Amino acid sequence: MESKQQVETARKPIRCKAAVCRNPGEALVIEEIEVDPPKAFEVRIKILCTSLCHTDVTFWKLNVGPVAVFPRIFGHEAVGVVESVGENVEEVKKGERVLPVFHPDCGECRDCKSPKSNCCSAFPLSHRIGMPRDGTSRFRDSNGEVLHHFLYVSSFAEYTVVDIADIVKINTLIPIDKACLLSCGVSTGVGAALKVAAVEEGSTVAIFGLGTVGLAVAEGARLLGASKIIGVDLNPEKFEIGKKFGVTDFVNPTNCSEKSVAQVIKEMTDGGADYCFECIGLASLMPDAINSSRLGCGRTVILGMDLHSPFSVNYPEIMRGRTIEGALFGGLKAKSDIPFLIKKYLDKELNLDGFITHEVSFQEINKAFDLLLQGKSLRCIIWMDK
Amino acid sequence: MESKQQVETARKPIRCKAAVCRNPGEALVIEEIEVDPPKAFEVRIKILCTSLCHTDVTFWKLNVGPVAVFPRIFGHEAVGVVESVGENVEEVKKGERVLPVFHPDCGECRDCKSPKSNCCSAFPLSHRIGMPRDGTSRFRDSNGEVLHHFLYVSSFAEYTVVDIADIVKINTLIPIDKACLLSCGVSTGVGAALKVAAVEEGSTVAIFGLGTVGLAVAEGARLLGASKIIGVDLNPEKFEIGKKFGVTDFVNPTNCSEKSVAQVIKEMTDGGADYCFECIGLASLMPDAINSSRLGCGRTVILGMDLHSPFSVNYPEIMRGRTIEGALFGGLKAKSDIPFLIKKYLDKELNLDGFITHEVSFQEINKAFDLLLQGKSLRCIIWMDK
Repeated sequence: MESKQQVETARKPIRCKAAVCRNPGEALVIEEIEVDPPKAFEVRIKILCTSLCHTDVTFWKLNVGPVAVFPRIFGHEAVGVVESVGENVEEVKKGERVLPVFHPDCGECRDCKSPKSNCCSAFPLSHRIGMPRDGTSRFRDSNGEVLHHFLYVSSFAEYTVVDIADIVKINTLIPIDKACLLSCGVSTGVGAALKVAAVEEGSTVAIFGLGTVGLAVAEGARLLGASKIIGVDLNPEKFEIGKKFGVTDFVNPTNCSEKSVAQVIKEMTDGGADYCFECIGLASLMPDAINSSRLGCGRTVILGMDLHSPFSVNYPEIMRGRTIEGALFGGLKAKSDIPFLIKKYLDKELNLDGFITHEVSFQEINKAFDLLLQGKSLRCIIWMDK
Repeated sequence: MESKQQVETARKPIRCKAAVCRNPGEALVIEEIEVDPPKAFEVRIKILCTSLCHTDVTFWKLNVGPVAVFPRIFGHEAVGVVESVGENVEEVKKGERVLPVFHPDCGECRDCKSPKSNCCSAFPLSHRIGMPRDGTSRFRDSNGEVLHHFLYVSSFAEYTVVDIADIVKINTLIPIDKACLLSCGVSTGVGAALKVAAVEEGSTVAIFGLGTVGLAVAEGARLLGASKIIGVDLNPEKFEIGKKFGVTDFVNPTNCSEKSVAQVIKEMTDGGADYCFECIGLASLMPDAINSSRLGCGRTVILGMDLHSPFSVNYPEIMRGRTIEGALFGGLKAKSDIPFLIKKYLDKELNLDGFITHEVSFQEINKAFDLLLQGKSLRCIIWMDK
């Protein structure tokens, strides 16, 4: 009977609230919307909490190009409970706690099966204004107008529909808000240290930009036993914050007088950091990051993305054995690596608590934007039921 | 007695012939020069044969900047016999056959001891117009004017002085001319496949530019069992030549009609080559190479160097798990890896013979330049005693 009931509910649209963005850069408006039932390989989830990431803000501001589409439901860091599932979904069932992840892990394509890649080739980036399999939306406003998805997640709504390739079932022992952090930003940073760079014990690390991603890189590097973790940031307050996540040394570019940041870091590391991480997304900073890495073996991992400009590399800077590596979602495979990070948290090895600096109710979601834009918050948890 | 005699000879300058370059781009002139005895940690060697590499030509043409110094003795691929050694040299003795290598391997610095680096930090690149330890020259012309060194080797002379960090003792079973190839170009290509990319069995490879270095990359990839080795070159004759070194497929950019080279390679490799190698040294080609590599795991190794322009990278091209890696001397450590490659040759696994397309006498050295400039030769062996 339960099963039949579930199917009956599952097939109906749900009316609920969502924070809709009507135009680029405008405050979100809480509206009543309709969320379609999940199609095959899809899961409809009730969002428990969500958080705001810089990527939301970047695309919220974006007013040109094919992905600047409105009205839209942003949000891609969240924890939810499965409300219903579409056909062919065996992996999760109603009532289970799940994490939606913007970076698919279909588990079946050549790339998902390879230990060297985390870029699913079955669901590439192209369709991220709709669902990954058919590109269409599951959302409509009260006038029947389509509301676009964001990064396959759209968590700024009481209910959303997510493809099973973007769903990770999680251990319920981890508090909901801590799990939420692993949906994007914190995983990206920790993963970059763990999987992209594979930081070695005793090595030196330089991190450009101590926002959530940069601090999560530090946390990952600390976990792996890096001997020196240098944070680079214009905000001097970030050193105290960074210490909680393993940052051992701090460079404020405004205090470097006549030396370049790279020179300062080379002196601090006897020739250059083993691993550099660019977590700001400024093309103009890339030469600093590359030149701060050690000749012969230095790796620079790019986590921030500059939408306005390519970056430029001088041959002498890279030819002597340096590497530049790009990564999405910290090189993590969502379905296997998120449970691993949750275990690290439950074993008290991974610090997640420090990333939560603010909490607001869903009604106050625009406050989360203000806090991030003012540089006051790392992660602001947005509670749906408060 | 022998020992005493050796010391007596060793302490005197030697008068011999060298092919001196007086001005950028001018034909070399065979002149009588004087070669100083080796100082501490140095070895004076009698060159048996030498060969011409593109790097010689690049610096022979160069007429601006601090390293464009003349008169100079070029040449950095060679095989020689130890004539005498300076103080503190235990590793080789008079009469032993050696290979000079431009890329030092001191064996004692942090980088030489690390398995991750081949960039000796005891002897960085700065002093390459003189000897590595003191920056001075061991050559004078008949008027007593100093002749500058090139890349720590200067093999276009009957005798030269080389630092012990740049000397590899070699097995005498390998023919001299074949060993000579391992001094730079061929090792650079083979090493890039073996050590920088560490090409996996069954993987796909794309090589931009089928000169000696590019063909040596193919040879290395073949050795490692790559399933598809795509050569990219404007010269259609290079496909037949490439087949000898394992090239399985050929792309001529002029025949790609409306598609980009990257599109063509993606189609040939079901989504992009696992490893791409840029062996031309054109900044404008880097986007093609990067975009030809597979999203999620594709590595692009840069072996060619553009002295005129940096290269530019678009964020979306690298963010999805791609890597760009620079390397000198194919990531090889001269003293351990050259003997390994010689063994591979003696075991008939590594094809070296195919790289030798021409041979000339030392008197005809300018012919070697003509052949390379006209694109007619891969390697031209220059015999000192003919």
